Amino acid sequence: MAATRPTMKDVAAEAGVSTMTVSRVVNGDSAVAPRTAARVEAAVRKLGYQRDDVARQLRRTHELSQIIGLLVDDVTDPFMAAVASAAEDVARQRGSIMLIGSSRADLRREREVIAAFTARRVDGLILTPAAGSHRFLRPAQAQGTKIVCVDRAAPGLDVDAVVVDNFGAVREAVAHVVSHGHRRIGYIGDTPRIWTFGERRRGYLAALEAAGIAADPALVRDGVRTGPEAAAAVSGMLALPDPPTALLAGNELLAFGALTAAPGDLAFVAFDDFALAARLTPPVTVIAQDPVALATSAAHLLFARIHGDVSPPRTVVMPTRLIRRGSGEIPGPFAA
Amino acid sequence: MAATRPTMKDVAAEAGVSTMTVSRVVNGDSAVAPRTAARVEAAVRKLGYQRDDVARQLRRTHELSQIIGLLVDDVTDPFMAAVASAAEDVARQRGSIMLIGSSRADLRREREVIAAFTARRVDGLILTPAAGSHRFLRPAQAQGTKIVCVDRAAPGLDVDAVVVDNFGAVREAVAHVVSHGHRRIGYIGDTPRIWTFGERRRGYLAALEAAGIAADPALVRDGVRTGPEAAAAVSGMLALPDPPTALLAGNELLAFGALTAAPGDLAFVAFDDFALAARLTPPVTVIAQDPVALATSAAHLLFARIHGDVSPPRTVVMPTRLIRRGSGEIPGPFAA
Repeated sequence: MAATRPTMKDVAAEAGVSTMTVSRVVNGDSAVAPRTAARVEAAVRKLGYQRDDVARQLRRTHELSQIIGLLVDDVTDPFMAAVASAAEDVARQRGSIMLIGSSRADLRREREVIAAFTARRVDGLILTPAAGSHRFLRPAQAQGTKIVCVDRAAPGLDVDAVVVDNFGAVREAVAHVVSHGHRRIGYIGDTPRIWTFGERRRGYLAALEAAGIAADPALVRDGVRTGPEAAAAVSGMLALPDPPTALLAGNELLAFGALTAAPGDLAFVAFDDFALAARLTPPVTVIAQDPVALATSAAHLLFARIHGDVSPPRTVVMPTRLIRRGSGEIPGPFAA
Repeated sequence: MAATRPTMKDVAAEAGVSTMTVSRVVNGDSAVAPRTAARVEAAVRKLGYQRDDVARQLRRTHELSQIIGLLVDDVTDPFMAAVASAAEDVARQRGSIMLIGSSRADLRREREVIAAFTARRVDGLILTPAAGSHRFLRPAQAQGTKIVCVDRAAPGLDVDAVVVDNFGAVREAVAHVVSHGHRRIGYIGDTPRIWTFGERRRGYLAALEAAGIAADPALVRDGVRTGPEAAAAVSGMLALPDPPTALLAGNELLAFGALTAAPGDLAFVAFDDFALAARLTPPVTVIAQDPVALATSAAHLLFARIHGDVSPPRTVVMPTRLIRRGSGEIPGPFAA
């Protein structure tokens, strides 16, 4: 008997609990009391118990549609296009194909797209969630649809997420601009109810506060979604009696728009690197992130879940990098 | 009897042919002899015969998967991202969802992606075909999968296509540069076996020939796919004993790369407009096309086919526009 592999029953006997409790613990169910879970885990280690993952996976693969769904905000955003491209590559490697849909920042549209995806029995979803609660996804989750968020976390939903430290990245960028003698610093972003923009805005305000600069509401523009809107926001700020001497644009599309209205002597930092940043006059200082790494990591996490990974949800935080090219280093009126 | 709607049988009796022949003619089957087809068409007109399109469509809708497939070259190409976004909008309006896959200019990958799509019983495909014969799609077509090409035609395949006049657009742009005094004009594009690049290259050569300029192989670079490759191609040309004084970049990604290596006094025209074109020094002259209009038109054509349009395949040609911003108007050494 000693040579056979220990079963769940053996673990249950060793720990003095039911096999149901063992099953809950090895499947990561948080409903089990921590002390009981610890006893089960000790028994698992002592007996060297392993779930029969091969059989489990074979059974699951048989039931899979081999279709995953990707929901992005807007695929014409170059960041989102890079995410889509990298996610498709992983799907392809894993023998799956990929549905794509876009929310256009509209939670109702997002719900409709996801409903259409789940109606086609997707094995899993990669999401860049729109603003608002995503509790509506819980029934799909309960029915076995795996969900991983990329770029943006989904408040109200207990799922894996692969993101960057948006707060820290913007705080660092704004502190950098402050160190070059700026105190009137504008911020242009989409609604802070979108997770990334909420974090970026918090980072902006934290850097001002750390520098003892009072935030001026006239220099903060939220809910800006398009290039022309960003250009108008910049023009509006520049027409103020006390205009900004520096500006942070919250993403690539907003940066493109802002740059059409910003004079060359306005200090400028963009979130997201872009192809022509070094070719502009002055070259544009950016906060760079790696959408391919984010999406690849998210897709691998999703396929791990699809193939039976039941460990607790995790948040993976990828690095960003401040690339100093000139526009963010233009000295301000308070330069030493 | 006169008050009832004429049937296919009535048409057959009137034309003196079998109902099978009538069916073939009304479904656009080209296997019927033209003279017979004309007789059937006359009978259809005389009797006022109409196919029972409502029942037909109800029957068809019932059988549909309401999934379409989009195959692009590379969704990180902003043109392709705009195509994908617009195609998804139409799919959504029509109650369908969209699979997306990319060929990355690899015909084998394209075949694999399409096979994966058809295995999931897509109702139709929107393609930007890679280089090479697409005869392999004929069996899928024969089994009822509708196919529409966008941006690029598919030689060897008798399907609808929505394209622009790439040949005429580039010929006009190069003639424009010639009129500003240039005779050494470089061309950078992907392989001419991709339909669009073949047409663009032909347009370039035709404009040179019309101006009595001998094409110099050292100034023509094909098979360039990435920004860094385009930058290297430009550097190579500029190192020639007799370097070009003007350059045409065959698409947006190649333009971005070329611009990182091109000095400001090199006359420059890019195929495809882009967000920052007016913000560069000098502002960039471009050949603009409308990817949203192309994709919207292609998607509507596809859904018309899915819902029973059996008219002969058509090619829709959309306009382009030369936008003169400055870089294409830099005078050359032969300026008057």
